Amino acid sequence: MAAEQTSKTIEAYPMKGGDGVHSYTNNSSYQGRVNNAAKRLITEAVEEILDIENFASSNTFRIADLGCSVGPNTFFAVQNIIEAVQFKYQCQGLDSQLPEFQVLFNDHTSNDFNTLFSSLPLDRKYYATGVPGSFYGRLFPKGSLHFVHSSYTNHWLSRVPKPVVDKSSPAWNKGRIHYTSAKDEVIKAYEAQYVEGMEYYLHARAQEVVPGGLVALIVSGCPNGIHHSQTTQNITSGLLGSCLMDMAKKGIVSEEKVDSFNIPMYYMSPQELEAAVDRNGYFSIERMEDLPPIQEIITSTIPKSQRVVSHMRATLDGLIKTHFGDAILDELFDSLSKKIEEGMPMIISGRTINFFALLRRKAMD
Amino acid sequence: MAAEQTSKTIEAYPMKGGDGVHSYTNNSSYQGRVNNAAKRLITEAVEEILDIENFASSNTFRIADLGCSVGPNTFFAVQNIIEAVQFKYQCQGLDSQLPEFQVLFNDHTSNDFNTLFSSLPLDRKYYATGVPGSFYGRLFPKGSLHFVHSSYTNHWLSRVPKPVVDKSSPAWNKGRIHYTSAKDEVIKAYEAQYVEGMEYYLHARAQEVVPGGLVALIVSGCPNGIHHSQTTQNITSGLLGSCLMDMAKKGIVSEEKVDSFNIPMYYMSPQELEAAVDRNGYFSIERMEDLPPIQEIITSTIPKSQRVVSHMRATLDGLIKTHFGDAILDELFDSLSKKIEEGMPMIISGRTINFFALLRRKAMD
Repeated sequence: MAAEQTSKTIEAYPMKGGDGVHSYTNNSSYQGRVNNAAKRLITEAVEEILDIENFASSNTFRIADLGCSVGPNTFFAVQNIIEAVQFKYQCQGLDSQLPEFQVLFNDHTSNDFNTLFSSLPLDRKYYATGVPGSFYGRLFPKGSLHFVHSSYTNHWLSRVPKPVVDKSSPAWNKGRIHYTSAKDEVIKAYEAQYVEGMEYYLHARAQEVVPGGLVALIVSGCPNGIHHSQTTQNITSGLLGSCLMDMAKKGIVSEEKVDSFNIPMYYMSPQELEAAVDRNGYFSIERMEDLPPIQEIITSTIPKSQRVVSHMRATLDGLIKTHFGDAILDELFDSLSKKIEEGMPMIISGRTINFFALLRRKAMD
Repeated sequence: MAAEQTSKTIEAYPMKGGDGVHSYTNNSSYQGRVNNAAKRLITEAVEEILDIENFASSNTFRIADLGCSVGPNTFFAVQNIIEAVQFKYQCQGLDSQLPEFQVLFNDHTSNDFNTLFSSLPLDRKYYATGVPGSFYGRLFPKGSLHFVHSSYTNHWLSRVPKPVVDKSSPAWNKGRIHYTSAKDEVIKAYEAQYVEGMEYYLHARAQEVVPGGLVALIVSGCPNGIHHSQTTQNITSGLLGSCLMDMAKKGIVSEEKVDSFNIPMYYMSPQELEAAVDRNGYFSIERMEDLPPIQEIITSTIPKSQRVVSHMRATLDGLIKTHFGDAILDELFDSLSKKIEEGMPMIISGRTINFFALLRRKAMD
């Protein structure tokens, strides 16, 4: 296995830090709702699949949350895992062997760890640590993790696929910022980048997770058999692309600048994840389940279009600022807001899926 | 052993973050020189005292740097430890058992971990993690550390001793900001706070460090048998106190504000540390050695008075700002600069000591 990603080839796309109006902290309730739906599945995973007797020799149970951002969702997620593990020890009459918990919060080096640390729950019953770096490479010592949690992060690619910004490539993605409705070559370049990244991801985790340890993924994806252009996420990023092209036509940004901007996200299908896990070979898939559609669990009184824009801004703010500067941000998201409102029927007709996958590290080496 | 410090009773005094002109990053060369002098002692400690066969079952060697601040000194220190451990494995023909290294960088939650993480050496050969919290309480799981390094941090008390800010106490420290030339009651209150803090510190480390593991302390202290009022550090903090009292007389700050401000630092003697280690009982003292006097290793061309002021500002900036607001900072340090220049003969005649202590966790429970 030679797959090893170095820090030099990995780009960093942190969520917007701090706690301002456009911050991730204040605009991540969408992910929070997905996590709530996954809570039950994680509790069941610990209850039914985690073999705690396997870990009896270790007096520390280590949980990593990969792509933790700045909270608060990460705190709820790890608390849930810890409570489930404690409950299992109690049910099995192993109270006296209850381990101590260490939680390793990971995100890119440029993530706002200061905000994360200052908002750690005061009544936490675990040792908290922050681990800076890309999860497409090794982050932890060999066999040191018992539970890996990664929510709503695996759609971030390790980098923009090189061919889509290469003018001489048939996959050059001129006039677009994503693979939405793009040429087949562009879609293939995004797919290839996903495949490579997932290989790095699983290879690193295979070394870090103890045999019997679990990896729980909550994935924003594309339903099996659906063309990428039909997914909700890609419809909205298509609208963002057209706003940028409008600004290029008005001379606010150069067209070249738009051509060289591509969103490094890919929405995998459950089948694609299964194929990646099979190729890697170190994990068994214990669960693969759709999470309830987001429409059904949204009860907010804020208009949906506004929520979509706020969420996109919290997620993409940093990426756009780095490429275009921050002068265009307000105008861009104002115009996106209008397009989203007009395009709402199309967005609603789009297909999307959030799914839960539970992997178990096989006992082999 | 009931000594356990909770986060609620511990105050935080972070070094000045970022990389500006008054930052700790740019004003910590003093500590850097002390570390260089300690480098040889740490290398020897690993060579002569660390029993690596003890740790053969663990494939991860964990190093914690307590009070790491924002770098770069912490990176040099841990690199030195890692190289010494690697060299020992090689010398003993144990190359094939060479462990992976995980470094846990600890400081207060309010430390600038973002700056620390962004300045991590790119070519590091260890897994880096940040651990927010006071070292006067537990920070790591039981028996998880092999080497603890703490440089130039143990003179920070866990809090200002309560009696010195209590008007009804005989230890009320009116008109002063430290125990320099203060009443005996004030000195006793500072001593008691040190004793309590060191008890918490050693109690926590006794649980976290594996039997045979080492704790290397580089301490800015008071020579055995010297009265506190004669130490260089206390002479300079006395001058800072008199600057604040001058400002109170001019009405720039209120006298009450000065009365309620006390620097939470205590300079222990080697004998006091020995006594604390004896009381704790879990560690043997393997080395206790003076480091070369700082005067001999300073070769800078910057006037000494300026260096003293810059160092004091980087260290105390946050503490003063929190108590008095930042409007007074420039004027205060300008006036301190003059007093330090005038008082240089007195400062030079002051006594000080930096010493190295190496503790080894006994094999008991």
